[in-house]
Amino acid sequence: MTVTALSTVDADGQAVRAALFDAVGRLDGAIRPVVAYHLGWCDEHGRPVAGDCGKSVRSRLTMLAAHAAGGDDRCAVPGAVAVELVHNFSLVHDDLMDRDATRRHRPTVWAVWGDAVAVLAGDAMLSLAHEVLLDSGSPRAVDAARLIGRATQDLIRGQAADVDFEHRDDVTLAECLEMAGGKTAALLAASAAIGAVLADAPAATVAALRSYGDDIGIAFQLVDDLLGIWGEPATTGKPVFSDLRSRKKSLPVTWSLESGRPAGRALAQWFAQSNEPTENELRAAAGLVDTAGGRRWARSEARRRVRAAQQALDSVPITPEYRRELSGLADFIVERSA
Amino acid sequence: MTVTALSTVDADGQAVRAALFDAVGRLDGAIRPVVAYHLGWCDEHGRPVAGDCGKSVRSRLTMLAAHAAGGDDRCAVPGAVAVELVHNFSLVHDDLMDRDATRRHRPTVWAVWGDAVAVLAGDAMLSLAHEVLLDSGSPRAVDAARLIGRATQDLIRGQAADVDFEHRDDVTLAECLEMAGGKTAALLAASAAIGAVLADAPAATVAALRSYGDDIGIAFQLVDDLLGIWGEPATTGKPVFSDLRSRKKSLPVTWSLESGRPAGRALAQWFAQSNEPTENELRAAAGLVDTAGGRRWARSEARRRVRAAQQALDSVPITPEYRRELSGLADFIVERSA
Repeated sequence: MTVTALSTVDADGQAVRAALFDAVGRLDGAIRPVVAYHLGWCDEHGRPVAGDCGKSVRSRLTMLAAHAAGGDDRCAVPGAVAVELVHNFSLVHDDLMDRDATRRHRPTVWAVWGDAVAVLAGDAMLSLAHEVLLDSGSPRAVDAARLIGRATQDLIRGQAADVDFEHRDDVTLAECLEMAGGKTAALLAASAAIGAVLADAPAATVAALRSYGDDIGIAFQLVDDLLGIWGEPATTGKPVFSDLRSRKKSLPVTWSLESGRPAGRALAQWFAQSNEPTENELRAAAGLVDTAGGRRWARSEARRRVRAAQQALDSVPITPEYRRELSGLADFIVERSA
Repeated sequence: MTVTALSTVDADGQAVRAALFDAVGRLDGAIRPVVAYHLGWCDEHGRPVAGDCGKSVRSRLTMLAAHAAGGDDRCAVPGAVAVELVHNFSLVHDDLMDRDATRRHRPTVWAVWGDAVAVLAGDAMLSLAHEVLLDSGSPRAVDAARLIGRATQDLIRGQAADVDFEHRDDVTLAECLEMAGGKTAALLAASAAIGAVLADAPAATVAALRSYGDDIGIAFQLVDDLLGIWGEPATTGKPVFSDLRSRKKSLPVTWSLESGRPAGRALAQWFAQSNEPTENELRAAAGLVDTAGGRRWARSEARRRVRAAQQALDSVPITPEYRRELSGLADFIVERSA
């Protein structure tokens, strides 16, 4: 990782934050403080806080992809802002739909302001994502906005499947992977592709960066699911064994259930129960996922996807220093602890 | 109204319905039947119905504005589909936020499928509106999509105000008119402007059609509010005195409250109560709005807005037969009974 590239990444981050701040400033006065709160800029009374603003993986991806394809930060910033807005639109609406009351150690929007404001704040961010791109004057704005549109429908498809899965006990690994493709990978793939498109990259480069984004997206979800069971509550901000507590059919769980192994069958019996699980039962269930092989599979599948992502980058001519940054971002995704 | 224009309107309606059907067909399989139900194409089990598909005022406006500006139906259809999608996105989300369980004599989406599906169906339609425009290949697609974006933020601003007003007893007529501007007039203004933009009309024509749409939008809301109190339940699909039952501070009510007349003061006292009103009390409250002058004001203000809308059309050179159609659409808005 060269010093040049690193400082560009920092400058990029600042440029994206400034443009995101400007974009949010255009929202209606009743919605703006809600979005600012959700983005971690202020508390629920509008007082500025120096808090956790999230990982901004998607906007970093857009900026890196644009640089890798030979573009500058000016062309890519509207795309980076748009993908952050779409991501946060989906978080605010998903929290409402899933009745998740906490995110990044703070109450979620619906928990603070109620359902109506959460619906409106999400709607406002989704619309704003398109506005930012279309106002940019980029000659490729329409192509980028079409990628946003397709990714949004993929997010909706993934979330619809997620909601549906809660009422079913026969969800297959293939269905789970398809859901992760919609809920997580589609927007990461679009984030990378949009950067390349706004840099006016040739179709092969756009396709390679899209493929890279798709693979790290699945890796991202696999690691998310591992952290949802074995993550440290202090770093993830979620209770210990969080996903088992809510009996979520995550990827390592579904792999274990399909494994045909005795621990997988025992896990299926545990999932068929509906009582409030004790701490010991949760630890035992996590042990069954481990014994059945779901934990090892998720880790190795995440690594395999990261390698595939890195190989996709090798197929096209991209700037070496940003090639390394993109490779590093992929590594970060499987090594992160929160 | 010439025969030519009338049959064009019919052909337009068919073209818009066909394109809307195609667009909805692109949605995810879990969301598509929900949207089709909401649009009145099928029942909740997916069985086709020959029902009430709504007035489609917005798409008619887009098509008429395009023709008036010298454009053909092909250029305008994607815009007409987009404005219908944005309108229906806002209906599905508003019904959820307002907990309205019935629309057009049928249960609303959240009442049939729950909150999560209503959030997703609305999100899908908002995104689809942009996709339809951007996929159209129109050289003016970006301008049209930017109008969609601005109108969406206006809808959100209007709905945020509406939600806020429910917790306040000091809402002014100016605030109510501002809310109507966001919730109703903004999308009607955008619908007309988008038709003109897609027909590649000069800026003055776009501005005139936008102004026309804005005025008929306020007239539309005034008539809606009159129907919300005095409408026939059999035609409106709402209970008698519907808006008074929910103690809604509609435009005629707010005018009466600000009138300073004895009936206005009596009305304020009635609005300060929180008991479930009887049929007799509702009739008495409606009588107070009438006596205070709110009913007459709303009628005459609606007519004034329609005249202003028609005058806006006189300021620019537009095709006479569609000038007459647009004038007729304005008249329809104040004369309708549902």
